[in-house]
Amino acid sequence: MNSLSGFKSAALIGTRSSEGQENVSIFSQIVHLGAAPALLGIIFRPDSVERHTLSNLRDTGKATLNLIPSGQAAAAHQTSARYAADFSEFKGAGLAPAYIKGFEAPFVGESPVRAALSLAEEHTLSINGTILVICKLLWAEVPEEILHADGYVDLAGAGILATNGLDAYHSTQLLGRYAYAKADQSPRLL
Amino acid sequence: MNSLSGFKSAALIGTRSSEGQENVSIFSQIVHLGAAPALLGIIFRPDSVERHTLSNLRDTGKATLNLIPSGQAAAAHQTSARYAADFSEFKGAGLAPAYIKGFEAPFVGESPVRAALSLAEEHTLSINGTILVICKLLWAEVPEEILHADGYVDLAGAGILATNGLDAYHSTQLLGRYAYAKADQSPRLL
Repeated sequence: MNSLSGFKSAALIGTRSSEGQENVSIFSQIVHLGAAPALLGIIFRPDSVERHTLSNLRDTGKATLNLIPSGQAAAAHQTSARYAADFSEFKGAGLAPAYIKGFEAPFVGESPVRAALSLAEEHTLSINGTILVICKLLWAEVPEEILHADGYVDLAGAGILATNGLDAYHSTQLLGRYAYAKADQSPRLL
Repeated sequence: MNSLSGFKSAALIGTRSSEGQENVSIFSQIVHLGAAPALLGIIFRPDSVERHTLSNLRDTGKATLNLIPSGQAAAAHQTSARYAADFSEFKGAGLAPAYIKGFEAPFVGESPVRAALSLAEEHTLSINGTILVICKLLWAEVPEEILHADGYVDLAGAGILATNGLDAYHSTQLLGRYAYAKADQSPRLL
């Protein structure tokens, strides 16, 4: 059933507790909610291993979003293991925490496309207790060679993973970009 | 900014108005919200072309989810054009509406992986007026050759598209599936 909603990102969310304990965990249920302000929605299942990420995000209001290249699929998947609360998933998965001056949450050193997030809003979905956490995108780091003049970020060019379900990791290949669709015109490749 | 949340599905949502007018529109902001019951969340921007889908879904309570193979990228993209309310996007995009007995919303004939949805819950996100529509997945149709014994659906095997941002379409290649991650074990390919 998890597969039927289609391909997703394999994003690592990095946080740090108010006591300084680092945490990183993989999330695939992430949506874009708006551009101005730039908002992302992240789905949390409250009873899962993700609870450390959620409590850190609530305590500190800060997190990082890190997209993962194909060479790091195994490490990204390993962050979903249930480590003890005082053990860093960075260490468990063999990923390097990286800090950017002025931002307290850890980035993933191996990630080429990453962003700083701040907590904006929480919604508990009464139907099954799932939590939608809305974060503001404060700023992002993207390699110059995949950032196009019109703002398009060529994730395939950076070898970013796509996932399907809970455990399947994919590389992607760009087929093409299409011009803004108009009712009186045929589809046109950019 | 739209690209930073990573790869997404290119799903066509099919609906029919209570007057019988067919509609189909592309959505990339879809999340899996739970398995029992099987729930999907779909993000709607209220002022966009998607408004016909939303009003039909509200009126009839029914919709279809259709994942799209790479050969249909142009047609899928064309469904985002702003057609008149009494004109079918199926016709505009050159896609075939298909009905399955007992379900009133139209499927996309060209889609190999598709599901029947019923409206369950709506949340308006106060931060920017975006609407999260939660649908129950009633049943799904998946080709036997991509459905594995453990329930995994091999979307790459069916050539299903992945998108990035508003206009970029990708094919994917399965790198591998990993076993359930455990804190005391290294990542292991299935």
